[in-house]
Amino acid sequence: MLDLETILDSRLQTGTKGVPPSGDGLRLRDVGAQGWNLLDGSIPMPAAVLRSHALQQNLSAFQTYIDRAGVKLAPHGKTSMCPQLFDRQLRAGAWGMTVATYAQACTALRYGVTTLLIANELVGEAEIRALSEVTSARILSLVDSVAGVERMERFLYGVKPIEVLVELGIDQGRTGARGAEAALAVARRVAASDKLSLAGIEGYEGLIVTGDARADAARVDGFLNDLKRLFETCREESLFTGEPILSAGGSAYFDLVARGLKTEGVTTVLRSGCYLTHDTGFYQRLLDHVGERAALGPAPALSPALEVWAQVVSRPEPGLALINAGRRDLSDDAGLPKVQAWARPGRGAQATSVSGWTFTRMNDQHGYVRIPDDADLAVGDYVSLGISHPCTTFDRWPLLLEVADDHSVIGALKTFF
Amino acid sequence: MLDLETILDSRLQTGTKGVPPSGDGLRLRDVGAQGWNLLDGSIPMPAAVLRSHALQQNLSAFQTYIDRAGVKLAPHGKTSMCPQLFDRQLRAGAWGMTVATYAQACTALRYGVTTLLIANELVGEAEIRALSEVTSARILSLVDSVAGVERMERFLYGVKPIEVLVELGIDQGRTGARGAEAALAVARRVAASDKLSLAGIEGYEGLIVTGDARADAARVDGFLNDLKRLFETCREESLFTGEPILSAGGSAYFDLVARGLKTEGVTTVLRSGCYLTHDTGFYQRLLDHVGERAALGPAPALSPALEVWAQVVSRPEPGLALINAGRRDLSDDAGLPKVQAWARPGRGAQATSVSGWTFTRMNDQHGYVRIPDDADLAVGDYVSLGISHPCTTFDRWPLLLEVADDHSVIGALKTFF
Repeated sequence: MLDLETILDSRLQTGTKGVPPSGDGLRLRDVGAQGWNLLDGSIPMPAAVLRSHALQQNLSAFQTYIDRAGVKLAPHGKTSMCPQLFDRQLRAGAWGMTVATYAQACTALRYGVTTLLIANELVGEAEIRALSEVTSARILSLVDSVAGVERMERFLYGVKPIEVLVELGIDQGRTGARGAEAALAVARRVAASDKLSLAGIEGYEGLIVTGDARADAARVDGFLNDLKRLFETCREESLFTGEPILSAGGSAYFDLVARGLKTEGVTTVLRSGCYLTHDTGFYQRLLDHVGERAALGPAPALSPALEVWAQVVSRPEPGLALINAGRRDLSDDAGLPKVQAWARPGRGAQATSVSGWTFTRMNDQHGYVRIPDDADLAVGDYVSLGISHPCTTFDRWPLLLEVADDHSVIGALKTFF
Repeated sequence: MLDLETILDSRLQTGTKGVPPSGDGLRLRDVGAQGWNLLDGSIPMPAAVLRSHALQQNLSAFQTYIDRAGVKLAPHGKTSMCPQLFDRQLRAGAWGMTVATYAQACTALRYGVTTLLIANELVGEAEIRALSEVTSARILSLVDSVAGVERMERFLYGVKPIEVLVELGIDQGRTGARGAEAALAVARRVAASDKLSLAGIEGYEGLIVTGDARADAARVDGFLNDLKRLFETCREESLFTGEPILSAGGSAYFDLVARGLKTEGVTTVLRSGCYLTHDTGFYQRLLDHVGERAALGPAPALSPALEVWAQVVSRPEPGLALINAGRRDLSDDAGLPKVQAWARPGRGAQATSVSGWTFTRMNDQHGYVRIPDDADLAVGDYVSLGISHPCTTFDRWPLLLEVADDHSVIGALKTFF
């Protein structure tokens, strides 16, 4: 679907994390033919790894779930910012792609995305002008105030009307008009504009996470109801152009969003991002709740596909191992990484699962791992880390290695942050 | 000093943050001639900005301080990972460059660094083999265990002896042999190796930051004494090859390190990184303490050179502005950013300092700014953010814009993370 030739033809360079000495100058498309194995000692650590099987399974399981729910998926590309993965998401059946910013939109458009939802208010002069000239794609963006509408109108050349969705917000939340009345005023203003057209209504429920899953779900349902009511009012007033769109987030509560927003004669669009790689922390807990609620049947079978591997550089005290991955390689905004396995690198090396090894802390380039005093973990050994919140791990890796179950490197994926 | 031609000839691409539509395909060396101004509405937000005057002043003030102290500076390149800035650091008088990892070493070597201190244990087979073949530079790295020595020996071809510094650690700290005895055993083992040579002794004091500046300084002095005693023992035992090196961090306590480690017949090397851009948070507080201690006279006059600019995308509630910069653009590991100024973009726009505007929170792509209810801040306006801890802001920006005092864009700087 996408044109990935320039990415596949681009050449690796040592200095990029994960590129071995023998990979310097190698075309990205040739990585899989090198016979590299993550555990044989040839790949410099740390390295970010995508488990190929888990990735394919997540793509398929989630799209199947979405299809059965009778809604559409515009996966949030900001999670990976990897056009090679955008391509797989579109091939799996996605309706379009979502991005968060102008720069991300440029990357999606460069590689051929043809339906692009910018899930944010566009307010920059240069950005609005540039995107209004794009003819290769349908671009939708958000607006949440009359001031925003007027700003867009001011910078539009008028080449074609720009399609916007009005964003309804949540009190004390993030962006989005506060209350149905304010949102409706924006929708009417858009419908009256000759430079904009009202494509739909949008909201973001993903920040409603307090730890009380039942109360959160009730709040999410309430917000989805508000969204739908606003939508119906706009439809009654004939404010929309074409078949209208009703969209919400869908990473944390995709079951509730699909159930709550599915409507006759409406394109209901979920913008889920994290299903792609899933995780071992924040999104695993949320998926467990999806399974418990069973709002639309069982949860899709997602499994963690993104790992960071690092090497022990020091065992200075009993029970303590220092590894060469830190804040530059891993995030902690949704919890620290989890140590999943270890391996002693060399030809034919195997990974062994561990429990009770704890990643406790990190500096910019170091991680601290607490292990039992008798653990056989030596300087030079590898550990694999499961992550919590894929978005803020992806953005630390210009290049990820795709591996098969036996840890052979079958490809490389380039990100654009 | 460095060969920056391939960087200067590389072409900007929209999709990289900070690159305007008109910059697509532009060679990096031509950025300064475009007449861009950060505040005129032509630069997509968010954008990372280096204030040229502050940068030049920091380079000069810090090197002067180091020269007067009679020690050497190998700036930690991991802070910026920007060869264009490495070049300025070397031209200002730096003795060499420091990096933290194999990948960072590759970047430094690619652009021509000839004295490179890898301030970390090198334990990877591929990395040790590759670096042992480098003939274009003097490379020094660390070792903190006999196991580490034996690992290096195992993977060295024996092309030339690898120069290592033995790292002394701190109890309950990070890497580094625990105690003089353990460190001395490693040093003796290195000296006895035919594949390694003992170039010096090293430690890192920068993690000793508790908030009690006086107690911290006393602990740092104590650690520096331990380092020096270990060094003297090794010298008495004639374990060193050539003029020995005595090295410590020097970002947080450069005054104490310079005073404590300066020794006759010794190359004392500080690896300060953050002086380059300084900050408005963590390092500003540490610099205040340097001034109060006056251990080597007044503190160098450093001022914050790194800023992130972002645009208001929503004003959904009184007193709240949402901006389009978040975790992907800013770090919070040493404190949240500070709102410093605002501007209404347009030709001839000026920035106005503010106080009492508070950056309170961020998501991946959004920041929350609390402002007085009567603040004249509208959708589309810009705010500038001072940062705390430059390292974890640099790594979120593949490209930074260098600006003059009037915010005209005089160049662009590429990073390699």
